[in-house]
Amino acid sequence: MNIRLLIEYDGTDFHGWQRQPELPTIQQAIETAVTTLSGEKVTVHGAGRTDSGVHAKGQVANFHTTSQIIPEKWASALNAKLPPSIRILESRSESESFHSRNHATSKVYEYYLLNRKHASALNRRVLHYPRKLDWEEIRKVLPLFVGEKDFRAFQGPNASVRSTIRRVIRFDLIQDCTVEGLYHFTIEANGFLKQMVRAIIGTVLEIGEHKMTAEEIPTIILSRKRELAGRTAPANGLYLALVKYDER
Amino acid sequence: MNIRLLIEYDGTDFHGWQRQPELPTIQQAIETAVTTLSGEKVTVHGAGRTDSGVHAKGQVANFHTTSQIIPEKWASALNAKLPPSIRILESRSESESFHSRNHATSKVYEYYLLNRKHASALNRRVLHYPRKLDWEEIRKVLPLFVGEKDFRAFQGPNASVRSTIRRVIRFDLIQDCTVEGLYHFTIEANGFLKQMVRAIIGTVLEIGEHKMTAEEIPTIILSRKRELAGRTAPANGLYLALVKYDER
Repeated sequence: MNIRLLIEYDGTDFHGWQRQPELPTIQQAIETAVTTLSGEKVTVHGAGRTDSGVHAKGQVANFHTTSQIIPEKWASALNAKLPPSIRILESRSESESFHSRNHATSKVYEYYLLNRKHASALNRRVLHYPRKLDWEEIRKVLPLFVGEKDFRAFQGPNASVRSTIRRVIRFDLIQDCTVEGLYHFTIEANGFLKQMVRAIIGTVLEIGEHKMTAEEIPTIILSRKRELAGRTAPANGLYLALVKYDER
Repeated sequence: MNIRLLIEYDGTDFHGWQRQPELPTIQQAIETAVTTLSGEKVTVHGAGRTDSGVHAKGQVANFHTTSQIIPEKWASALNAKLPPSIRILESRSESESFHSRNHATSKVYEYYLLNRKHASALNRRVLHYPRKLDWEEIRKVLPLFVGEKDFRAFQGPNASVRSTIRRVIRFDLIQDCTVEGLYHFTIEANGFLKQMVRAIIGTVLEIGEHKMTAEEIPTIILSRKRELAGRTAPANGLYLALVKYDER
């Protein structure tokens, strides 16, 4: 049986998705919970290898099992073994060939930012950015990242991928009117390079501070040089929001 | 100088607002921070004495000081001494006679509820309520609590107030469409009895489960008997949202 999971997590206390010796990770926590329930040693494949400190509203994962647990019951069974910072929202069976990462057609990330003088006690999984930002200028620059482009200039170190070409499908900015100064970016692409969202957000924030101009963006993209783009924004504001599949 | 503070806090790790020997409370944390900054021993008066585990988006407090710290600078100065779960959003000087509790004309509380099968890893300061609720029935009952009434049947134990008459100004239900199953109630009154919001919410939830009917509400109110009303809903979903003053 191939079980598909929909997962929400608060990444604050984890060293990212991917299993690492001696460090708490989301993948390790879920694999351990599966083993506790079924006695099997499994690999839980995640659609997105979120970095240390990154959160998820809608991570998708899958694992193969010979257990007799009913597919829909895995969610409650796993939740009983997992910490409250990881919740399985849904479990179901998929065809044996389904692979959460290989079959994803696109992913949506959100980046939350609190642009006001004082931090929030209640909204702490955001980037607190007390400096003034030119939101009009930021809005203008977002379309420059949309389309099929070589995003090498926005790739973090030690990445090993064949191609650095990705297709960004949308890049929007939303102001949350219920909390003063709260904004979030939504970026959808057919795939993301390592730390790509955080490098793009860091660059966009430099434009918002007038340290860089919109006119420079095409040149930075063409350069393929990481050092020309902006800083890497902190992990804490980033959420894997949604993974899309070509559901037939 | 009489300094007025606007305060946000995550009440999870505190035993409520009010100072208590040997227990961490919001009032004690802020008073200690004031003393660290000015060397004075002060009483910080809060507009609402929130219970253990209750949160605040907009608590108002005031304290008298002879310190030379500029009123507007108290917010940043206190934030530097306070834990991240308490943030001062604003500080300013008020007339010497201003008292955050005595002069409040009304207060607004919000109660958050996650009505779905699985809890959330990201929205944890809510009441997770997996059982089915009849939201139409709940909406119908809210107006029955609005108006000037004796709310004695919704007062927690060990309260010592002269009158149990309060005027509820509004009681609304809002569905948050960005998170599946997330709802919140907003209740405004000229004052609240001890645990009044939680007793009202607990009663409303029993109506949502058809354990009680809307027709019983007027009788329960007239009875003035706590045992006829519903359970006290947990503190974790409750927020002091706003304190209003007659600002002249």
